[in-house]
Amino acid sequence: MRIAVVGLGLIGGSVARRLAPGHDVRVWDTDPATRELAARQGLTVAENVTGTDVVVVATPMDVLPAVLSGLAGQPAGTPAPGDGPVVTDVGSVKVPVLAAARAAGLRDRYVGGHPMTGIERSGFGASDPALLDDAAWVLVLEDDTDLDRWLTVAELVTAAGCRVVPATAVDHDEAQARISGLPHLLASALAVAGAAGGPLAKALAAGSFRDGTRVAGTRAEFVAALCDTNREALARVLDATLADLTAARDALATGRSVLPLAVAGNRASRDWADGAGTGITLHRNAPDLRARLLGLGAAGGTIETVTEREVRGRVSRATGQGRLPL
Amino acid sequence: MRIAVVGLGLIGGSVARRLAPGHDVRVWDTDPATRELAARQGLTVAENVTGTDVVVVATPMDVLPAVLSGLAGQPAGTPAPGDGPVVTDVGSVKVPVLAAARAAGLRDRYVGGHPMTGIERSGFGASDPALLDDAAWVLVLEDDTDLDRWLTVAELVTAAGCRVVPATAVDHDEAQARISGLPHLLASALAVAGAAGGPLAKALAAGSFRDGTRVAGTRAEFVAALCDTNREALARVLDATLADLTAARDALATGRSVLPLAVAGNRASRDWADGAGTGITLHRNAPDLRARLLGLGAAGGTIETVTEREVRGRVSRATGQGRLPL
Repeated sequence: MRIAVVGLGLIGGSVARRLAPGHDVRVWDTDPATRELAARQGLTVAENVTGTDVVVVATPMDVLPAVLSGLAGQPAGTPAPGDGPVVTDVGSVKVPVLAAARAAGLRDRYVGGHPMTGIERSGFGASDPALLDDAAWVLVLEDDTDLDRWLTVAELVTAAGCRVVPATAVDHDEAQARISGLPHLLASALAVAGAAGGPLAKALAAGSFRDGTRVAGTRAEFVAALCDTNREALARVLDATLADLTAARDALATGRSVLPLAVAGNRASRDWADGAGTGITLHRNAPDLRARLLGLGAAGGTIETVTEREVRGRVSRATGQGRLPL
Repeated sequence: MRIAVVGLGLIGGSVARRLAPGHDVRVWDTDPATRELAARQGLTVAENVTGTDVVVVATPMDVLPAVLSGLAGQPAGTPAPGDGPVVTDVGSVKVPVLAAARAAGLRDRYVGGHPMTGIERSGFGASDPALLDDAAWVLVLEDDTDLDRWLTVAELVTAAGCRVVPATAVDHDEAQARISGLPHLLASALAVAGAAGGPLAKALAAGSFRDGTRVAGTRAEFVAALCDTNREALARVLDATLADLTAARDALATGRSVLPLAVAGNRASRDWADGAGTGITLHRNAPDLRARLLGLGAAGGTIETVTEREVRGRVSRATGQGRLPL
């Protein structure tokens, strides 16, 4: 497979370094120093994507629309012919990128992606192929996504050592709000509440506070981008959480117990699928492949191998007995 | 020092086992099997506290008032003479226990305590003297607390390998709401929000979600007791946090950014005192000892040694450059 990686930050650098042995990989970054670093790592630096099968756009979210327009070779808003390499990205929110890709005229060639890995460090210097080991990597599958192109990107993702999670852009962003946007906002709010208690509160802080605030140290601009680009889903999720916390607050203020929230939280943290799972094989020419792939993702399943004839994956058994994989 | 430990759970068991070598320690538990376990560990089991210097009441919070009344030797509400051993406890909230001790007529002899350690496991079987290594242990110091008796308990706590944090009951409970009650409620709410996303959300959950929900697995009755017994302070703290999160929600819903909360959270998690600190020595007969001890605690300082003449401690330098001690 001939692959171009555009943008050599943490993820782009890790993907390029993981795929370069065994694939025809060329890389590009707007920063000359980063290009030089990449060349010194043995990567092939090239400005154009001509003749590649897949372009992995791994730039920051805010320049993604411009890069997608550039790859479509024409201004935003004008439909383009379906020719040229498949374009995928690694942005943390998928609905707005899908809209940008469609606006750029890339609908037929675009397959949105989001690897669930590595956010603390950044830059090519921090890139590491091992970051991708067994990571879940969402690939967006819509009604109008070209299935062959989707499977081409799935092949690339599994070749990089990751498990593909098929999901619509809307479902991805909703899940992302719950398991990434919300925890970052709660960690920030908890850190603020702790600091408001002054040195005494800090002297008493132990495990529960440390765990709850761990990601509050993430770069604020990163947290804001993560949340702001997913504002609709996150506002909706936050509404439900605010209702739960307000109910607990009212219980405390009126002499009742917070036990219902504690019980629900405990049950939620234990109701976790076990690690083993059941193997699943789908034939590439199955007429209902799109629906079955989305069904696999919705069930928490992942794809581990893509061959010329088959897609092989695994879906965990939700036993209700499992624990969060700490 | 002659010490009685009443209640041999995780904390009581750990304290008794830590102090038994080198002190005259007797223990008691209402459970015969636990008494037998303790005796097999070489501890001296005895039902009465006659002739002891300090009684450490390490029972669950809900039976504390009854135990304190029993130690006062009379029904609740009747003032008692000041005679008999000093009584301390290890309950996670201090205002209600202080009120119960006063109601039991123990005002002169009671010194409230709270070791900041070990909550995941429970029972004598899980007790471990190492749990106390360098743990912060709040001792409640009020205007009417007998200073000599307070220093006797401080001597016991430092002998157990812990650092004493002097604080009023109100200040302790306020800090406790921020660094223990609140993180438990937020973890429960986050676990509920994640589970509501179904298997897809679980398949995508990574570090931020795992860290944020870690203590949601704590026994629900423990979380409820921790929060319900501290309802006033926790409702107040929760109000401020709900306001912060509601502001973030409104920002998302109206096209603005959550950056202010992310910046505040980031700053709060970095504005941490460094570990080294400055040594402090207070003379036991200093006229302003009570105020200086409370000042040390309010500054995030702790007491490491209590001798016949001196109290030696340490206060960290709040450099604003430090990181949360992860």
